[in-house]
Amino acid sequence: MKIQHAQLEVRTKGKGTYEITDEIQRKIDNAGVRTGMVTIFVQHTSCSLVVMENADRTARQDLHDFFERLVPEDGDYAHTSEGPDDSTSHIRMVLTRTSETAPISDGRLQLGTWQGIFLFEHRRAEHRRKVSVTIMGE
Amino acid sequence: MKIQHAQLEVRTKGKGTYEITDEIQRKIDNAGVRTGMVTIFVQHTSCSLVVMENADRTARQDLHDFFERLVPEDGDYAHTSEGPDDSTSHIRMVLTRTSETAPISDGRLQLGTWQGIFLFEHRRAEHRRKVSVTIMGE
Amino acid sequence: MKIQHAQLEVRTKGKGTYEITDEIQRKIDNAGVRTGMVTIFVQHTSCSLVVMENADRTARQDLHDFFERLVPEDGDYAHTSEGPDDSTSHIRMVLTRTSETAPISDGRLQLGTWQGIFLFEHRRAEHRRKVSVTIMGE
Repeated sequence: MKIQHAQLEVRTKGKGTYEITDEIQRKIDNAGVRTGMVTIFVQHTSCSLVVMENADRTARQDLHDFFERLVPEDGDYAHTSEGPDDSTSHIRMVLTRTSETAPISDGRLQLGTWQGIFLFEHRRAEHRRKVSVTIMGE
Repeated sequence: MKIQHAQLEVRTKGKGTYEITDEIQRKIDNAGVRTGMVTIFVQHTSCSLVVMENADRTARQDLHDFFERLVPEDGDYAHTSEGPDDSTSHIRMVLTRTSETAPISDGRLQLGTWQGIFLFEHRRAEHRRKVSVTIMGE
Repeated sequence: MKIQHAQLEVRTKGKGTYEITDEIQRKIDNAGVRTGMVTIFVQHTSCSLVVMENADRTARQDLHDFFERLVPEDGDYAHTSEGPDDSTSHIRMVLTRTSETAPISDGRLQLGTWQGIFLFEHRRAEHRRKVSVTIMGE
């Protein structure tokens, strides 16, 4: 049984969801783990992680629109030093996920048919996001 | 130290929460792990996982009602190919959880007194849901 | 590779976020794990866990205010035996997190620069909260 960390850098171009499933699978391939688990941990407070349907783009568009309505940028916030997407980014992050743990069998990430893993960017500007990927197993 | 996967099938009869705590404990019993962790991972994007109070059913009824109001089926969505519960299912899934990791001591899942683990079904129709249970420890 | 459980008790003084990052690091120090993972699991259904920005207090104030509006205590709930903060506590818990798993490298919790781990108390009264901390690695 071994445990191994790898680091992903995700370049985002403003608000939206960016699929990282293939990059995570490559880290599993590199680690050579056949049976185990992978933990994905986003090291930021203004972007987050979601498992989402990866077939039809309109599903993700509805998700983006929903969050714009649920946590509107023109709301009344105290924490606005970095702009109207400052507090909203933190709140949207809290409502989604920072870490996710998924099974590995036969060397493959065991997602459901329609599942993809996405980084959810909540800031308007481009960012380089750090995602820690921990692979454990044998 | 060992790591072992097991698979649960949960039959749902439309929207609502279905407790799976006992099934998870049985998988731990089968694995024979005394000290360790269990990761539960739902392999779908239209149902999710919640840890919820398991004593009083009205608490869960309030939860269901809250999600009907927060993510209403009569909202304005683009992704409706599978009906009015299509996009709402994905959004409700994102707002809850896909994976959860909990401690095992003395061979028992270490939940708090009132905690139960539930599959949260967001679709109206009956479904057979796949839940991966990974047990690690010694 | 070892796996070890530790227990935190967090004393809360009503609704709000209470940082527990340092306490978790101390448990990692005690376990002597250099490379591994830590899973934090809150053993309650009326408080939860959030990773949140830990520099500017106004960010957390906006978060608290948002949840007061999203899940208002003067809403229409069936489960009110413990007061107006009864069902709201469970719903706010479901919308945030019960467990979180984070990487450990060089004996340190690998959080991002602005990330802190907080217990999110949803009840008005003072409570003693139990948080399970599982450390795994070598």
